[in-house]
Amino acid sequence: MSEIRGALRQFFWEDEGTLNVGREVFLGKDLTHRLVKVLRLKEGDRIALIDGMTGRYAAVLTDSGKRARVEEKQVDIQTEKLGPVLLLGMPKREALEAVLRQATEMGVSAIVPVRCDFSQNVRLNEERTRRMVMEAAEQCERLTLPKIEPMKTVREAVEEVDGVVLWADETAVPENGDMQGAVAFLVGPEGGFSVEESEMLRGMKNVRGISLGPRILRVDTAVVAGLSRM
Amino acid sequence: MSEIRGALRQFFWEDEGTLNVGREVFLGKDLTHRLVKVLRLKEGDRIALIDGMTGRYAAVLTDSGKRARVEEKQVDIQTEKLGPVLLLGMPKREALEAVLRQATEMGVSAIVPVRCDFSQNVRLNEERTRRMVMEAAEQCERLTLPKIEPMKTVREAVEEVDGVVLWADETAVPENGDMQGAVAFLVGPEGGFSVEESEMLRGMKNVRGISLGPRILRVDTAVVAGLSRM
Repeated sequence: MSEIRGALRQFFWEDEGTLNVGREVFLGKDLTHRLVKVLRLKEGDRIALIDGMTGRYAAVLTDSGKRARVEEKQVDIQTEKLGPVLLLGMPKREALEAVLRQATEMGVSAIVPVRCDFSQNVRLNEERTRRMVMEAAEQCERLTLPKIEPMKTVREAVEEVDGVVLWADETAVPENGDMQGAVAFLVGPEGGFSVEESEMLRGMKNVRGISLGPRILRVDTAVVAGLSRM
Repeated sequence: MSEIRGALRQFFWEDEGTLNVGREVFLGKDLTHRLVKVLRLKEGDRIALIDGMTGRYAAVLTDSGKRARVEEKQVDIQTEKLGPVLLLGMPKREALEAVLRQATEMGVSAIVPVRCDFSQNVRLNEERTRRMVMEAAEQCERLTLPKIEPMKTVREAVEEVDGVVLWADETAVPENGDMQGAVAFLVGPEGGFSVEESEMLRGMKNVRGISLGPRILRVDTAVVAGLSRM
């Protein structure tokens, strides 16, 4: 644990199994490409590797960047405290990247894409999403990736949460009452929720409407503002 | 006050003076261009106009969109509650637009650009900034624009605040203590504050360091997360 936080740039190691000190591991084609071709790192350079299961390790590139030797465990995964689940009303395509990045920075444990009446885009490219979320997780120094769930309807998404869902409801009174104990945050797409969706949500037992203030927030801003109060 | 909130798209009217019901006003070249050429509105179409001083008004386009007749006052400026001042360590150029937009949505009353040791960009194009902030204010339905102050050093920016400045300090203990009564929020550029700046800030009487959590947040995320807790 001798490296200061952030001193080594960190990367997710996506192979099966876990890292441990002394092991020399293959980095895989994608990661080697990023390290050697994009970032111009060389054999002997140090990076941090994360396996998503046990923690973060300092490592040295070997074999022209195709492999790395794990030298030291830096951070144990047990230290990572994750936040709530984000139930994300699918926003416009051009807004998606910022939303995924900012939700990852805010520490969500999972993201559930939600198909809403006002969603103009309900397609999520799995590979592209994984890549965006991984890069955000690397940059903000998470030890795990948020899990990306399959697309759900509003009802499915809410019903599957075992606990209170806070709902960013534009019609709620701004009092910012009790946010304690909630385990998920539901935010709508541009234009919010339809009348039918809003009525359904008001009738669901585990949903609590909250106001994020008097202004109309874009999806990315609503996500950060809501999560930061939980 | 018969229009529901958001029913008319709103625009800032930038002429001198104030709007009032019955008046027919020139919209100016820029606004007419946006309305007629970009948004394809026509004489007789209704919009909302904001003068930044008295409130928001429903209006009807006349004279081929060169003028508008003010029909009804919708919202009085007195109803707008604004938030703190943002002391913004100048971020990279590509991050600036999102930061200005999100800060505007969060209701900041003013933005003070701050020249920090780690700022890679310390130029703020005045006209471009005004435009970005105005569009964000229109979309989130503010009645006033955040004031954009002249660029300052960290010391100048903090000293000129008459009250407590919350400082997003990456070394602060995450306890999120007393944020009450603060009137400004100081956030650093990518890479944060230098050792010298941090020492200076720790010695300033009206500065209170707060933690935004264990992850490294990008500037836009830090701005929203900090402001939403004030």
